[in-house]
Amino acid sequence: MLSIETYQKEFIDYLNRFSILREPKNLYNPIEYILRLGGKRLRPILTLMTTEIFDVDYKKALDAALAVEVFHNFSLIHDDIMDDAPLRRGNSTVHEKWDINTGILSGDAMLILAYQLFEHYEPKTFQALAKLFSKTALQVCEGQQDDIDFETRSDVTIAEYLNMIANKTAVLVGAAMQMGAIVANASIEDQNNIYEFGKNLGIAFQLQDDYLDTFGNSNTFGKQIGGDIIENKKTYLYIKALEFSDESNIKQLEHLYDTHPADVENKIETIKQIFIVSGSSEATKTAIENYTNKAFAVLEHLNISENKKAILRQFGEQLMNRNV
Amino acid sequence: MLSIETYQKEFIDYLNRFSILREPKNLYNPIEYILRLGGKRLRPILTLMTTEIFDVDYKKALDAALAVEVFHNFSLIHDDIMDDAPLRRGNSTVHEKWDINTGILSGDAMLILAYQLFEHYEPKTFQALAKLFSKTALQVCEGQQDDIDFETRSDVTIAEYLNMIANKTAVLVGAAMQMGAIVANASIEDQNNIYEFGKNLGIAFQLQDDYLDTFGNSNTFGKQIGGDIIENKKTYLYIKALEFSDESNIKQLEHLYDTHPADVENKIETIKQIFIVSGSSEATKTAIENYTNKAFAVLEHLNISENKKAILRQFGEQLMNRNV
Repeated sequence: MLSIETYQKEFIDYLNRFSILREPKNLYNPIEYILRLGGKRLRPILTLMTTEIFDVDYKKALDAALAVEVFHNFSLIHDDIMDDAPLRRGNSTVHEKWDINTGILSGDAMLILAYQLFEHYEPKTFQALAKLFSKTALQVCEGQQDDIDFETRSDVTIAEYLNMIANKTAVLVGAAMQMGAIVANASIEDQNNIYEFGKNLGIAFQLQDDYLDTFGNSNTFGKQIGGDIIENKKTYLYIKALEFSDESNIKQLEHLYDTHPADVENKIETIKQIFIVSGSSEATKTAIENYTNKAFAVLEHLNISENKKAILRQFGEQLMNRNV
Repeated sequence: MLSIETYQKEFIDYLNRFSILREPKNLYNPIEYILRLGGKRLRPILTLMTTEIFDVDYKKALDAALAVEVFHNFSLIHDDIMDDAPLRRGNSTVHEKWDINTGILSGDAMLILAYQLFEHYEPKTFQALAKLFSKTALQVCEGQQDDIDFETRSDVTIAEYLNMIANKTAVLVGAAMQMGAIVANASIEDQNNIYEFGKNLGIAFQLQDDYLDTFGNSNTFGKQIGGDIIENKKTYLYIKALEFSDESNIKQLEHLYDTHPADVENKIETIKQIFIVSGSSEATKTAIENYTNKAFAVLEHLNISENKKAILRQFGEQLMNRNV
């Protein structure tokens, strides 16, 4: 096993050798652009790592890892259009730099390019990878649709919210790891378990993201603290607060989430207090812990050495102990 | 072999049994909507027909045929957004009935659903189908991008135009037939030949569409005659007319293609005359004939009975002898 940093470097080298500078330029240049914008490359690293967890050279998994990253960036292009987002990783989004039509078409091409990356595997592996990929990609679309639908609904339950974040972000983490297991020819049981590990860790990570968006440290979190509150985003914190609050706090919360006041600091502070007093912030921390533990519990069932389990556990702990 | 009408009926029955009424509704209802809008279902019929041309039951090809039709409708949804088209088959386009975001996301889901339809085939067939599908889908994206780029270019050559229509429409016809051959386990040589038959026939059909848009009979063509001229669309007729005309006619053509006059009848008539006098209309008719003959010539190399070749030839003739 190599270090995370080495997998990252190896993946980025491979990504840089993946040339999509083809004609027509207006189709392929935006793809080149978004793939070179950077990012932690967390998902493809997980694919490479998982292949080595199952004792196969990570190099065999490079194309599957690249497919995951290309798909992820496809979803960013299309999501950014839907969210009308001007910036991605500090740079112009594709539809801002070019236009919406370019974003749609280049995104479509990326989704297809992702499937093409599986073509180097022999038929049985190819089919297993493509099947998992299609199932996951469809769930990502469903999660994105739910996310859009939830904006205009006031009765979203915790179960619905968890299902949405699982689909929108966590299943791809699970799938990235399962793909590594597929390439390594791991047993179906191990494949399913490593998928569950990744998925649960993905849910924990997303819930933590919700939590830190309100309660994190602005110096280290990387996003504006209170961003979700400013945008009236109905996160786990918000839904739990509604569940736990009395009539008057519910009214105040719902009222504040109906407004876009000039003085955002006051709004953020008020809502933060409701999240704390209602017990929602504690409940969110507990949920994060539960999903993290659920992920770690699955590790026990994997048919790998204790040493390998320790590596996965350590990776999970590092991910969840973001210093923020 | 059954009749075209029977393949059409069998395909529509199968399509109607393909239920995508899943949650979230806002993702899947638009898919249901566009798939039920009708259309000739030409491409999936070709898939079924080709499987039987190679002596295998068409029922084996139903999922591949459905994948082709789902992909075609995905491309219609996204193209209609890019073209800002309000109507599709006499009904509202998806982005008009819902909104652009819905069109983007439902289209994405359809592209994935198309791949999923290959999952019922065993791994080797699955890989062959998915590989051909990815190659073709990427070409369709490239054709669409070229089509967009050509709108703002004044130096498009005949070769570039032919490449664009081949990618945008003809390769999918070729691929639809090759998929039928793949399902039937035909030889690679036969697969390639049936692909070339479909592709060349597709190019001939598209050139004929260009021709009829200007010189067709409005009672039978189904679209407004002169529509391409009104929209200043640089078709084969236009590019050939530029190639064949003297300085003064070139100037007049380029000037007219720069305007949107209120009196369209006069513009259409003037341009029609230039197309005729320059020899462009004759050249277009010759090109249609050449591509049709090229398609028929490929038939000779297929390892199928004379009877089967006659069926394909008859199909091609029916397609090209639209009474318009």
